[in-house]
Formats: sequence, structure tokens, C-alpha cells
Amino acid sequence: MVTMTEQKAIRGELLTLEAMSTVEISNILQEAAHFASGKEWRPNKELFIANLFFEPSTRTRYSFEVAEKTLGLHVLSFSEESSSVQKGESLLDTVKTFEAIGANALVIRHPENDYYEHIRQQVQIPIINAGDGNGHHPTQSLLDLLTIQQEFSSFSGLNVIIAGDLRHSRVARSNADVLTRLGAKVKIAGPKEWMAGYDEAYQYVNLDDELPKADVIMLLRIQHERHDGKMEWSKESYHQQFGLTIERENRMKSNAIILHPAPVNRGVELANELVECGRSRIFKQMKNGVAVRKAVVRRALDQY
Amino acid sequence: MVTMTEQKAIRGELLTLEAMSTVEISNILQEAAHFASGKEWRPNKELFIANLFFEPSTRTRYSFEVAEKTLGLHVLSFSEESSSVQKGESLLDTVKTFEAIGANALVIRHPENDYYEHIRQQVQIPIINAGDGNGHHPTQSLLDLLTIQQEFSSFSGLNVIIAGDLRHSRVARSNADVLTRLGAKVKIAGPKEWMAGYDEAYQYVNLDDELPKADVIMLLRIQHERHDGKMEWSKESYHQQFGLTIERENRMKSNAIILHPAPVNRGVELANELVECGRSRIFKQMKNGVAVRKAVVRRALDQY
Amino acid sequence: MVTMTEQKAIRGELLTLEAMSTVEISNILQEAAHFASGKEWRPNKELFIANLFFEPSTRTRYSFEVAEKTLGLHVLSFSEESSSVQKGESLLDTVKTFEAIGANALVIRHPENDYYEHIRQQVQIPIINAGDGNGHHPTQSLLDLLTIQQEFSSFSGLNVIIAGDLRHSRVARSNADVLTRLGAKVKIAGPKEWMAGYDEAYQYVNLDDELPKADVIMLLRIQHERHDGKMEWSKESYHQQFGLTIERENRMKSNAIILHPAPVNRGVELANELVECGRSRIFKQMKNGVAVRKAVVRRALDQY
Repeated sequence: MVTMTEQKAIRGELLTLEAMSTVEISNILQEAAHFASGKEWRPNKELFIANLFFEPSTRTRYSFEVAEKTLGLHVLSFSEESSSVQKGESLLDTVKTFEAIGANALVIRHPENDYYEHIRQQVQIPIINAGDGNGHHPTQSLLDLLTIQQEFSSFSGLNVIIAGDLRHSRVARSNADVLTRLGAKVKIAGPKEWMAGYDEAYQYVNLDDELPKADVIMLLRIQHERHDGKMEWSKESYHQQFGLTIERENRMKSNAIILHPAPVNRGVELANELVECGRSRIFKQMKNGVAVRKAVVRRALDQY
Repeated sequence: MVTMTEQKAIRGELLTLEAMSTVEISNILQEAAHFASGKEWRPNKELFIANLFFEPSTRTRYSFEVAEKTLGLHVLSFSEESSSVQKGESLLDTVKTFEAIGANALVIRHPENDYYEHIRQQVQIPIINAGDGNGHHPTQSLLDLLTIQQEFSSFSGLNVIIAGDLRHSRVARSNADVLTRLGAKVKIAGPKEWMAGYDEAYQYVNLDDELPKADVIMLLRIQHERHDGKMEWSKESYHQQFGLTIERENRMKSNAIILHPAPVNRGVELANELVECGRSRIFKQMKNGVAVRKAVVRRALDQY
Repeated sequence: MVTMTEQKAIRGELLTLEAMSTVEISNILQEAAHFASGKEWRPNKELFIANLFFEPSTRTRYSFEVAEKTLGLHVLSFSEESSSVQKGESLLDTVKTFEAIGANALVIRHPENDYYEHIRQQVQIPIINAGDGNGHHPTQSLLDLLTIQQEFSSFSGLNVIIAGDLRHSRVARSNADVLTRLGAKVKIAGPKEWMAGYDEAYQYVNLDDELPKADVIMLLRIQHERHDGKMEWSKESYHQQFGLTIERENRMKSNAIILHPAPVNRGVELANELVECGRSRIFKQMKNGVAVRKAVVRRALDQY
């Protein structure tokens, strides 16, 4: 199979941030910031967008839907359960069906890594990746970036710790890569065995030592559903060893912030009391998710 | 946990009718009657409402959706099956997510009694209760009231019998309480063991004796799904002992009406032939459900 | 039970093509052709349409939805999984509920043959049949006809082969019947045991002999889900004996076309390479499906 970089890009598609220049990422963030400040935009004609979700999702699915409906689009909302996927229809045929019946863009969440590689050149309409396996989740990364940018204006020199279940995360890699390209200093923390693939490129640190120097801590959700039910720590012992406890939070810099993609395992990745504490940006992230998705959807539809 | 009455009300919320004055109930009924007569209303700006259904529903779900769309709202339609609830996300986090991404009000159906108690003070947007466990179902009660009011103008002195599976019903208690407050005389009928919690407050009667004097019979659906599959009567013997048979219907007053929240177990709670008989208001109730929900949704959104 | 022909038709309903005159079919096709060429139409007032799907569907469901939303309708999208059907509610009661809450027309897909017979006289709103068991699928037939008409202008004298799993198909019978009435010469091909009920009325042919003379080959999807998992051929041997192989395609007339209702079992009913070959109209069919459904929905709503 040819790799993505060998293929020409479909106009307006968004598959991974790795494939994008920092200029392009900054442009999307700027547009998203405008939407966050109340910017409105509507296409000149009636357009359809299809949200194809092959995995459960609340935040991503509905924030796309809010963004799309606010932009005046017709939304087709597809779930695997009630579709012809039950009759064995392939992703490619599903995608081509939506193109044939008039979708102008597709938002796809799929459990398979890089699912887009074998479909993106088969359709003429842009695909927005809403999460692939434990691969990428570019709109989540963009909303994390927007939230940081709103706080610190620039990424240059920021100390960012990404902590927790990196191995099963679909945002850790993108975030680490993009933040580094944008000038931040990224370190990683959490159970050593969950750092595989990261510990050569990023400094592995102990939270107790490094958290007091950090500007941003990005906590990752423990993806219980990808651990086959096995985890060697109890929730309490994970929290004490690797989580953001109240004690650790107390030692953070005064203007440092907490990010978490949610849903939060309360009392595990962070103390229940911290979910809405003064430095938590967890709900701000969700709000920013709508602005980012407006920018990304507009970018996909600008060609019409 | 503080009880609801100790907490301040969120503007526009609707959790139970018990917590409402008869003046406020009458106001909603008046507004609903206007909507039933063709009144139109649209908010001044684009608003989002999220329907969060954690249990199957046809009537309630889609009559809310018809009401909302007629009012020009953007509707987010959430079902548990394809959401992050599958990843263990709590109701509170689901609700806060929808607030964060821009929902202006929430309609919630949930299997747990009083589910709203621990979430209502955690969000700033109004919650409309679309049914909690076997607790309350205020919009169903309101549509029952509207249907009675359309028929008799006043509740004062009306003889109402509530008959059937009171114990598992989420409307029996509200209806009995509110009708009494509004001046009606409420009696109860059905299997004695399904009257627990009601028989001290309301007169338990035999249908054969009392039905001929009633103005309204409110039949309740047997909630088979809450009986653990065990019921001591066959359908036929239940119908003969406690149901609205054709013989019993023949002895009703000429202008007396039949209500049932549906779905009907045909041939059990009432004879199949009576579902659409001259005195049945069962489909009128459904139609009124849309008008009531328009009034309730408008009330929730008036603050915007 | 009275048969359909004994009952009066509900204005605007579409249950089977068998019940329609060729004049009426031609009128719908003409209207659909106008929609395919960009015609626009909107009703004079706000109308609701409910799509009730009791079986999985992608193409039919979403092409109805695209058609309906383009026509400016409010769409209620119902799936069995999250409805009161789970509490044992009957199709009739579901249908009457949607009528009561304001649906102006119903689109129904149901696994039971002729499901509409016992409900169509119980509601005042038109039903559009989106597929019943292995009975009928009139909008699929209409889009097949539109696709043929676009290609050849007239049906008169066209050689059409319907090939494959006729026994389990919900379009084979309608298509064979209507094409014959419109003047085409219909022949059938495929495993002999799948021809039951067809082989008296239509000539059973060998693809190798007849395909070179055909103008249209309509391939049918093998309905694996209706074969109880048993099929006596491997995919490869079915393809070689009864499928459209590249060798067979090479011998087709230069302007002959390939139809398939999709989803395609690639490499079985036809070679993977032929799905998008020059004479394939498979994606054109899907596109035409939207135009046909606009015409059918408009026809159902013209009374309002």
C-alpha cells in the first residue's frame, strides 16, 4: 500500500496533525479562536455532512453536531448498530454510499488505526478523522492546543507533561509531536510500561519532581476498554502513584493548568475535587472543541 | 444529600409536579392549550436542546422532538447505546458535557428514581424530567390534565378513578396528588397488592361499583418489564377482574372519558375495541403531549 | 383479511409497484428525472416525516433522509433498538403514535412481508414502503427504472437479465413485472433452486449464452442473512458459475450496463474490478435513489 505522504491530499481533509505544517495548524487555531469569540459563518448553499461513528462517543460526536448545525449544515448521523454494516458492508462501500447520495464531507470515528489510508483516495469528498483506533484524534489535539494558546498566547518554551496511559491514547503522540514542533518542551510521566514508543523521544519524569515546574499537565484517560480488563493497580494505588492528587496539585505553579480529554475516571487520573478546580480547563476544552470543529468543518467545505 | 426543596430552583426546570403550585400548573396548562389551538412561538436566537434518553421511548421522545423542531430548535438526540456511557461515563459527566458544548436545556429520561437530585445543582441549564424510574413523569401528567381540562373545563368535583399497576407507574402518584389539589375526587382500583403507598391517602374501590359514577378513568399500563416476568394473573383473567371490559364501558356515564398513557396492552388493561371508541382520549392524549411539551420547552428557554 | 386491491388507496401512499398503472409509474419517473436534473420543491408549510426502520439500512435510510431534508421537511428518525417496541409495542400502535404526534407521512422498512396490509387503513397519512421482508421495495425498483431510462430513453424491446438470488430478493419480482409491463424482455439467471416462483413466467437462461445480447444485467445481492448461513457454493465457485466475471463482462454489448442494488459482495456477484467499471451504474443508482425518493415523498405530501 502506498503511504499517505505519497498520495495527493484531498482538499480540506484532516487525517493527522503529523501530516500538517505548523503554519497550517496555526491557521486552523486562529480560525477556531475566531469561532470561540463568536464568529459566524454559513456556506452559500445547502450542504450535507455525514458523521459516521463506528465506536461509541459523546463529546466528539455531539460537539461536531453542534458545530455543524450552527454552521447551517444538514447532518446525517450514522451509527454502526442500525446500518448495513450489520449485513457485512465494508467501510469503503459505506463511505462511497454517502458520497453518492450527496454528502459533501465525512466525519469518521473508527476503531481501526489508519482506517483512512485505504479509503481517502477512493472518494472525492474530504474526510475529517474523528479518531482512529489508538492512532490519531486531530480535532482533540487541536482543542488541546487552542486551550493552551488561550492561556499562554505562545507555545514557545512551555513546560508540558503528558501523563498516564500513553500507550493506548490516540492523542498522546500527536500532542507530543505538535507541541514540540510549536516550541514547547514535552515530558512524559506514568507507569513505565505505558511509555513504550515514547521514552526514546521524550524525557520520562517523576511527577513529584517535575510537576512543580510544569505550565501544563495533560492527563490521559485510562482506556480500560483497551486493557482487556487487566490492570495491575487498584484505582486508589494508581491515583497515589501516578494520578494528580490534591497534594500534587497544591505544588503546581500558580498559573499552571490541567487538561484532560474526558471522560474522566474521577479519583483515578485526578482527584474528584480537581475536576472543576480553578486550574482545570476540562470543560473549557469541551467548549473549545465546538470552536475547533467549526474551523475544521469550514475548512473542509470551503471548496463548495 | 440535601433534598430538592432545600435547593434553589434552576429557572425553567421541570422535575416533578409535586414541587409546583397549582397556579404554576394552571399557567402551563393554559400555555399548552394555546399551543394546542395553533399558537406559534420561536426564540429570538438559535438554541440547542439535548434529549438524553437512557431508556427506550417512542411517544415521549418523539413528541418532545416534534415540539422542539416546531419551535425552531436545534435538537441533539442522545441514546445510551452509542455514547460514552458505554465507557463508564456517569450521568453527571454526560450532562456537564452537553452543557459545555452548548445545550441550552436538557430533556432527560432515566431508569433511576430522582436521578436529577444529584445533578440539577451542578449545571446552569434547566432540566426537563421526561421520566425517572417509577418516580415521576411530569409532562405525561400535564398532558393527562390538559386532556381532562379540554373535556370538562374545570377539575373541581370531577370523579377520577386511577386503575391498574399503580405501584410501578411513574404517573399515578403525580396525577393523584395534582388532581386532588386541583379539586378532583380521586379513587384507586386494581389488584390490592399494587396499591401499596396509595391506599391510605386514596379510597380503594371496586370498578364495578364506582365506574358508573366516574367522569374519568385513567388506566395504567402494566409495566411487564418491571414485574421480573412474574404476574399471577393471565392476561384474560386480569382483564376480567381489573380491566376495562366492554361490559364495564357500557355502564359508564355518557360523557365520561377513558385515558391511558400507552403503549396499551390491548385486551388486558382495556378491550381492544375500546382503544379507539368514542370516549377514548388515548390518541388525543398523544396529540396533547406535543402541545404540553411545547409549553414546557418554551418555559425552559424563556430566559435566553 | 381483505386484500389490498379491495381497499381504497390512501392518497400518496406507495406500497408496491404491482398496484400501480404504467402511467402512474411513468409520472413518478418523470418527476424523479426532474429532481435528478436539479429541480427544487418545498411544501408551503412545515411538515414532518417519520422514517421507521425495523431493520438495518444505510442506503435506503439515508437517501430518504437526504431527499427529505433537501425538501425542507422535519425528519423523525426512528430505530427499533431505542423505542417502545422494546416494551412490546406493536407496529400498528407505533404507526398510530407517529400519526397522533404530527407526522404527515411515514417511511417504513419492516422485516415482515406485506406488513402494511393491516395498518394502512388504520391511519390517515400515507405510508411509503421502504422494503417489506422479501416482498417489495418500490423505491429501489423505481431507481433501477430511472437508471435504465436515463440510458436508453425507452424500455420497449430492451433485453434485461435479472441474475442471482431472486428467491430472497425484495426487488426481483417488482422489477421483472414492471419491466415487462413497460415493454422490456426479461430473462432470469442464477442457481436453478433460487428461481422458484419465477421460472414459469420468465425464461431461465445461461449467462454465457445470453449476456452478450443483453442491454441490462441486474445483479442481485446474495442475501446471506436470509440463507441461515448455508450456501452450497464457495464465494469463488459462485462467482465462476453465476457471477459477472471479467471474462463475461468483456463479451457484453458496448452500450450495455450493469446494475446492482448494493451492498455488493465484491468478488461474488461481480468481480471487484467491475464495481466501478465504465458500464457499472451502481453509484449512479444510489444517486438516482435520492431523486426518486424526492419524487415519492413529494407525491405523498402534495395533499397538504
